[in-house]
Amino acid sequence: MTGTTDSTDGTGAEAVIGIDDLPIRDELRGKTPYGAPQLDVPVQLNTNENPYGLPEPLVARIAERVAEAARTLNRYPDRDAVELRTELAAYLTRTGKHPVARENVWAANGSNEVLQQLLQTFGGPGRTAIGFEPSYSMHALIARGTGTDWISGPRNEDFTIDVEAAEQAIAEHAPDVVFITSPNNPTGTAVGAETVLALYEAAQAAKPSLVIVDEAYVEFSHRDSLLPLIEGRPHMVVSRTMSKAFGAAGLRLGYLAAHPAVVDAVQLVRLPYHLSAVTQATALAALEFTDTLLGYVEQLKAERDRLVTELRGIGFEVTDSDSNFVQFGRFENSHTAWQKILDQGVLVRDNGVPGWLRVTAGTPAENDAFLEAVRALKKEQHA
Amino acid sequence: MTGTTDSTDGTGAEAVIGIDDLPIRDELRGKTPYGAPQLDVPVQLNTNENPYGLPEPLVARIAERVAEAARTLNRYPDRDAVELRTELAAYLTRTGKHPVARENVWAANGSNEVLQQLLQTFGGPGRTAIGFEPSYSMHALIARGTGTDWISGPRNEDFTIDVEAAEQAIAEHAPDVVFITSPNNPTGTAVGAETVLALYEAAQAAKPSLVIVDEAYVEFSHRDSLLPLIEGRPHMVVSRTMSKAFGAAGLRLGYLAAHPAVVDAVQLVRLPYHLSAVTQATALAALEFTDTLLGYVEQLKAERDRLVTELRGIGFEVTDSDSNFVQFGRFENSHTAWQKILDQGVLVRDNGVPGWLRVTAGTPAENDAFLEAVRALKKEQHA
Repeated sequence: MTGTTDSTDGTGAEAVIGIDDLPIRDELRGKTPYGAPQLDVPVQLNTNENPYGLPEPLVARIAERVAEAARTLNRYPDRDAVELRTELAAYLTRTGKHPVARENVWAANGSNEVLQQLLQTFGGPGRTAIGFEPSYSMHALIARGTGTDWISGPRNEDFTIDVEAAEQAIAEHAPDVVFITSPNNPTGTAVGAETVLALYEAAQAAKPSLVIVDEAYVEFSHRDSLLPLIEGRPHMVVSRTMSKAFGAAGLRLGYLAAHPAVVDAVQLVRLPYHLSAVTQATALAALEFTDTLLGYVEQLKAERDRLVTELRGIGFEVTDSDSNFVQFGRFENSHTAWQKILDQGVLVRDNGVPGWLRVTAGTPAENDAFLEAVRALKKEQHA
Repeated sequence: MTGTTDSTDGTGAEAVIGIDDLPIRDELRGKTPYGAPQLDVPVQLNTNENPYGLPEPLVARIAERVAEAARTLNRYPDRDAVELRTELAAYLTRTGKHPVARENVWAANGSNEVLQQLLQTFGGPGRTAIGFEPSYSMHALIARGTGTDWISGPRNEDFTIDVEAAEQAIAEHAPDVVFITSPNNPTGTAVGAETVLALYEAAQAAKPSLVIVDEAYVEFSHRDSLLPLIEGRPHMVVSRTMSKAFGAAGLRLGYLAAHPAVVDAVQLVRLPYHLSAVTQATALAALEFTDTLLGYVEQLKAERDRLVTELRGIGFEVTDSDSNFVQFGRFENSHTAWQKILDQGVLVRDNGVPGWLRVTAGTPAENDAFLEAVRALKKEQHA
């Protein structure tokens, strides 16, 4: 079988067959897959990865726990991931200022899969979801992938949520699912509890709908987690990930905390045995090293604050950040600015927010390289 | 947060909140999650697992490759799983009697996720899929989970596909997706190439639709893989898994082979970075041990054949098996028979096929224990 050609017409002539020659769904036609460009440059500050590799004792512990799991790899994994959910609940209880039990927690292959399961259960064909944009673009894409209609809600000029406009949008559209991202990606801003509660009330009055608070970056925030808000609110879900704070983007481990009935409900759509034995073993090893990994988070918060201060000193506008990344601008043409920074060996992200770019907080040396590149850019703008 | 109760009415009285109190999709109401009962009994022959644990050198190699991957676990995994797909293609080329390139192969977390991605792309709301039942029940469940209407197609009394009736059903319903399971689960029967081709032609005439040949158990078959049929047929997909032949149910690694355009198409719905770095590393290690693992497959085939012969000797009806399991009967009440076998410490599967049960080929000792249990059952029936 060679390349993307085929000879089905019997003439021996090869006709190129592409995606659009296949009987795919109409709404997928002409689309391109999600994903940041993966370029091989010295300083990669474009996908909000944690720059610190796992410490060697944790690498050894992962090898040990995975070897243990591998000895019975012929058997299906624990379908309910009981040990892992117990340890995730302990982590949330310890850091979230709210007691959480295993029954409140569910885990999947990345928070993307958690969100997909929630949309399959509470969204889907004939239903709608709303998010306040710009925000994490996968929310809209996962909605599309699950047949859920997507509504793009508004934000203020400074990227905070316009509560009144958001309440109005919820009342008008009566969505089945409401996404609130805190801290928000790509802007970096966190959302206060009073805003989440106002939108939750609006969503309950309108439908009632499921409110998903996406806290992928919350460990980097100046604010506390919104986790305690799930108490007494069975339609509120907090989603989390080990990709960022635990330095484990390669592990693909996302989880949620909610009322136990929500955890029961996603069982109806989750693929059985979705979470492999090696994933469970690796995540459990990483959770043993929580203190060490949260130490890296503190270093990254300091670097993030330094980026904000220095970028403002250079003369950029910077959105307040509660995350491990910083949104800065403004540029007449953000794609041109992105390319000029790339030309100096530093890859940042153009998230399509006109006038703005996003940089991930890296190691001190990486951040210095980035700051040098944008200083040069600023000088050029003034020249 | 305690249990599954809540106190939202302000009276302090606790009202139990369950799944059906949540705003879930109507078609999920009253459903229960998929999954075989997980019972702690001495001999577990109910989920078609490979009874042989991985050999210790492979366990060591997995630990080595996972440790290597863990050192850069802070980075996202290879989104396109290039190395893994290359090795899977080499395995298919070697064993499938047909050259396959990396561009023909896609991998995901279990063949369930492969099938889910295919249904999101080629099925979904307003579209239909057909399967010939009894067959792998996840096909219908994944269809439901993706909003695809499910059509239950017919089989002959002996569980082979009734080609004429199947062609008629395809012509009548013009489904978007056609599932053919070979060897079929839970019956064990393989499907001939001429049948697959006839149904493919019928499906192209009716729609055209995507034909998915689910070969999860093909390494155990007396027949060759149907893989060569993808040549010149861009609407034909063969799906596979490492769960059975590679003794790696705990790994969750499924894959497909098809025209490169199909591989490109599923990129539109796959969650980005869906396949973790530890999953990719573990699968690559297992593929290094292909010869050893296929040696276990030969042992299991011999045991499977012994089960068929001995069960017939005892006086059971047995469906011909090309798989690592055997369907046997008939029972007036298969659930009662299942319970009586369980009472003797042997767990088999009641797949809901009236009159029949399914037993997985285990180790020789496990199979002996099973045969002893069913001999006792047979004597009791005659007593």
